[in-house]
Amino acid sequence: MVDSIKKLIRDIPDFPKPGIVFKDITPLLAHSAEFANTIQLMAEGFRDQGIDRVVGIESRGFIFGAALAIEIGAGFIPIRKPGKLPYDTISEEYELEYGNDRVEMHVDAVREGQKILMVDDLLATGGTMGACCSLIRSLGAEIVSAVFLIELSFLEGRKRLMGIPVRSLIEY
Amino acid sequence: MVDSIKKLIRDIPDFPKPGIVFKDITPLLAHSAEFANTIQLMAEGFRDQGIDRVVGIESRGFIFGAALAIEIGAGFIPIRKPGKLPYDTISEEYELEYGNDRVEMHVDAVREGQKILMVDDLLATGGTMGACCSLIRSLGAEIVSAVFLIELSFLEGRKRLMGIPVRSLIEY
Repeated sequence: MVDSIKKLIRDIPDFPKPGIVFKDITPLLAHSAEFANTIQLMAEGFRDQGIDRVVGIESRGFIFGAALAIEIGAGFIPIRKPGKLPYDTISEEYELEYGNDRVEMHVDAVREGQKILMVDDLLATGGTMGACCSLIRSLGAEIVSAVFLIELSFLEGRKRLMGIPVRSLIEY
Repeated sequence: MVDSIKKLIRDIPDFPKPGIVFKDITPLLAHSAEFANTIQLMAEGFRDQGIDRVVGIESRGFIFGAALAIEIGAGFIPIRKPGKLPYDTISEEYELEYGNDRVEMHVDAVREGQKILMVDDLLATGGTMGACCSLIRSLGAEIVSAVFLIELSFLEGRKRLMGIPVRSLIEY
């Protein structure tokens, strides 16, 4: 089942900059049966775990996170780029190759003791997801797992998420 | 059913700038039952219409669009801000209060004759959705309807979408 998903991920050379091969997931999203299949595979094992909220990271994480939240009967929480969320926020900085970036979440997005499932399309270095996990934990919620469509395992992103169970459907 | 959704939309005064009251949908998204209810209401009447693709507009449109695509068994197509999509794109400019903005879509996102359902969280002046509809039609696909969670009807966005059936769950 994962093979049929993998065939719908397209390599785009030199995007967003020379030397990088970008994994384009839009052919997968456009394929109704395989997109549904992807959400089913992401949801496996999480339906009976009492997950309160699925957290998706802007922007592609919204696509998988929202569908997965509906699938397992949880609420959906967006983590966004700075300045986008309208209510009071908490934020966390993380390192990029050159410089820093920041993610924001509403202060009332999760509560102490809630069980949280984190979702994004891609696990690369783990910088973004690591910062997002810090936000969740700072409010006292429990991260059950982090789920990704794609993991670039040579970048060793799992190491930055030490202690959090990681599931990725496809590894490169 | 819509009343219970409406109660979960929070007014944020002076966001993103003084004088504007922003409709914050994050309490609704976080509420598992009402978020699922929202997707059910958006899907009503579209399950048996042979919709090929649901098109969602970055970023909040991704949340509703992806869940709705899964719900009605269609593929999902993202329309994004400039420079985000990795493959060959077509783009359309539209007017803002001050200046212009632009939306992009992959050239192979939809095909001639496909039936398309457009989704976004908010219909305001209709500028963004109007530009997105132009992109879809330029590739020869048929727009069945445009669905919104919220419509600010005093801004008369429907007029910019002339000829396209509009459904909004909540009007202000």
